Amino acid sequence: MGRERAVALVSGGMDSSVTLAVAQREYEIAALHLRYGQRTEGREERAFHDLADYYGIATRLVVPMHHLSLIGGSSLTDRSIPVSAADLHARGVPSSYVPFRNASFLSVGVSWAEVLGASAVFIGAVEEDSSGYPDCRGEFFAAFERAAVAGTKPGTTIRIVAPVLHLSKEEIVRMAVSLGVPLRLTWSCYQREDRACGMCDSCALRLRGFQRAGVEDPIPYVTRPQYANT
Amino acid sequence: MGRERAVALVSGGMDSSVTLAVAQREYEIAALHLRYGQRTEGREERAFHDLADYYGIATRLVVPMHHLSLIGGSSLTDRSIPVSAADLHARGVPSSYVPFRNASFLSVGVSWAEVLGASAVFIGAVEEDSSGYPDCRGEFFAAFERAAVAGTKPGTTIRIVAPVLHLSKEEIVRMAVSLGVPLRLTWSCYQREDRACGMCDSCALRLRGFQRAGVEDPIPYVTRPQYANT
Repeated sequence: MGRERAVALVSGGMDSSVTLAVAQREYEIAALHLRYGQRTEGREERAFHDLADYYGIATRLVVPMHHLSLIGGSSLTDRSIPVSAADLHARGVPSSYVPFRNASFLSVGVSWAEVLGASAVFIGAVEEDSSGYPDCRGEFFAAFERAAVAGTKPGTTIRIVAPVLHLSKEEIVRMAVSLGVPLRLTWSCYQREDRACGMCDSCALRLRGFQRAGVEDPIPYVTRPQYANT
Repeated sequence: MGRERAVALVSGGMDSSVTLAVAQREYEIAALHLRYGQRTEGREERAFHDLADYYGIATRLVVPMHHLSLIGGSSLTDRSIPVSAADLHARGVPSSYVPFRNASFLSVGVSWAEVLGASAVFIGAVEEDSSGYPDCRGEFFAAFERAAVAGTKPGTTIRIVAPVLHLSKEEIVRMAVSLGVPLRLTWSCYQREDRACGMCDSCALRLRGFQRAGVEDPIPYVTRPQYANT
């Protein structure tokens, strides 16, 4: 008898690559990637395919999603709002927050899981040491899982699994190294597609994680500020 | 001070037209329509604009959504699965069920509502006298509303409102007439865009509702079987 199936959301960043590495040890994976008009969508899609190739995943789906950029409200998808330089001590919800984005992502994941007969949807969200996005909280994922039980065919049970939710970026880097995740294939920068900018929130969180873990980040950067003690 | 805002999902069918009529009496409406690869998407979009014109709604968003037809699993979006003739006594989930579709619709609605500062998302779902879709149950909407509270910015409260959820189609026709809803502008057929087929589940439910209410359906049909006593 074959293994159980799971859908894994793979953005191509560090968190989703570790999530994928965890998921594929236990499940037969169907890999899902969303292009939602984010500035670096081409580079992220390449990272998605590189990771899926690395893990030998044949069942893949890339979904173009237009509404998040049509709706706007985020510096990630709305070119009229600049990507701010990192401020790792800022409070509140940052300008890069894409309103209720993860609900759209999980809805696609659960729809596909229901058709495939998969029993879980993996997502690489991080609650702590992250950016204060409301749709990255464990409370949200638990509520969404209940909605998935209520809104799918009787007898369907699809769990929402976020294995790195409570890890810091430093712990995620260590976990990636111990699982042999090919971090050179991942992409996290919000702003550039050739070399990571080193300055946006996502680069700052990533670099700080590597620096605190004492590991060198294998991807190219325009600049690599020291964030370890910030 | 202006009225509170709400997002209304308007497919262009009878149920969403009555929902819109109810919503616009209390709220300033932003009207949302999803093109998701259903067979009759062009005709439904026309009905959406005709209804929005009728109610004088300027704030509109039409979102193309590709994943539901990419994922398949439904006769509405997958051309390899035929639309079955109506069987109003069938049990279980019919072939026209689009897996977890309403979660995707509501996710877009809540994202837009969060950006607009709207306090409700209206959806024209019908639980009873309907087709047994799991994502049309009150239990699902209540669970999704809790996910929307958990997954949006602190202080955001967006209610999910389904005013026709517990009505029969007969009651919906009567309500449409009493509210003066322009039913001639609506479209419900799953299969055709010129004249309604009269044979699919959606046509059968609609015609039965009109026949039981003793009202003539103003849209053109290829054939109008008698469903009143079925």
